Amino acid sequence: MYAAPLARLIEALTKLPTIGPKTAQRLAYHILRMAPQDAQALAQAILEARAQTRYCSICWNLTDIDPCAICSNPQRTATIICVVEDPRDVVAMERTREVKGRYHVLHGAISPLDGVGPDDLKIAELLDRVRRERVEEVIVATNPRAEGEATALYLAKVLKPLGVKVTRIAHGVPVGADLEYADEVTLAKALEGRREI
Amino acid sequence: MYAAPLARLIEALTKLPTIGPKTAQRLAYHILRMAPQDAQALAQAILEARAQTRYCSICWNLTDIDPCAICSNPQRTATIICVVEDPRDVVAMERTREVKGRYHVLHGAISPLDGVGPDDLKIAELLDRVRRERVEEVIVATNPRAEGEATALYLAKVLKPLGVKVTRIAHGVPVGADLEYADEVTLAKALEGRREI
Repeated sequence: MYAAPLARLIEALTKLPTIGPKTAQRLAYHILRMAPQDAQALAQAILEARAQTRYCSICWNLTDIDPCAICSNPQRTATIICVVEDPRDVVAMERTREVKGRYHVLHGAISPLDGVGPDDLKIAELLDRVRRERVEEVIVATNPRAEGEATALYLAKVLKPLGVKVTRIAHGVPVGADLEYADEVTLAKALEGRREI
Repeated sequence: MYAAPLARLIEALTKLPTIGPKTAQRLAYHILRMAPQDAQALAQAILEARAQTRYCSICWNLTDIDPCAICSNPQRTATIICVVEDPRDVVAMERTREVKGRYHVLHGAISPLDGVGPDDLKIAELLDRVRRERVEEVIVATNPRAEGEATALYLAKVLKPLGVKVTRIAHGVPVGADLEYADEVTLAKALEGRREI
């Protein structure tokens, strides 16, 4: 039904997450109508992103320079490390502008059901960093799910013997949300974590 | 916040329709984790689709060979032309397997509000085809919207003097739909187009 090059483009797009056959068709027809330099730029961006990004040898975030811009920024304190599961979480944390230290990307969370143990994550690299650098606090910002919690507990267990403070980001009611619609586990966590005002 | 090549990829993806910043970020991280040959294939598919597809000189559908596979298929009758607005509509019509003839893609519909008149569409080319080929019926399958209707009426006006039968696809209740939720215009059209059983 499609011209062969168009069918190949639709097929390649369908392999991307959240892109079903309908969206792939729509994107493919759009790409055919784009200005030639825009289509060229898109193809180029795909190849260059693959060729030019790698993991920072210190924090394991995605970067085009090694060490990454955050790790090599002298304005960021080396005494605080914020631990996250995924490079995307670094972006989310950076948006808060509240992290004064640096990051460490684990590339996952402990999940026995999925066969992911501590050795599958960048935990040994984190311990090395804590031993080598003068780290005072490790903020564990793994996701507020079972796997993230298990990872946080594991990190606390292996980091505390190194004489470093291990903290966990607070669980609670999201800002702007309705209490009415908060689930009871979140609400219980919010109560538990209450602070004097 | 992003490594430069990653930021460029996200920016390029955001230019696509239905892709917001969140989806672009998700797609970009996925592309970075794809097998190298898959990322290469995607970039290649974009460039090749652009380079190798053009419009069929007979029906103006997208094709990699000219005339297109449908126009050059001797099994398709040349006496029936199904007129659609967009190349995607050819795909939709072909899925029915009910069109025995060939197509003609107008590349739009008459829309005075958007400044689109008959001369902006492939209507002169359609008239030429009807004059040149032994066309007996033109099925107007433009969209069931004001612009599609206006285009259908205009086509009937200019085609009928050429001694060709002009038909319009039926409007009515979609198969599988609930009458309860059908809008009154559709329902009126369905009543008007009723047939004896």
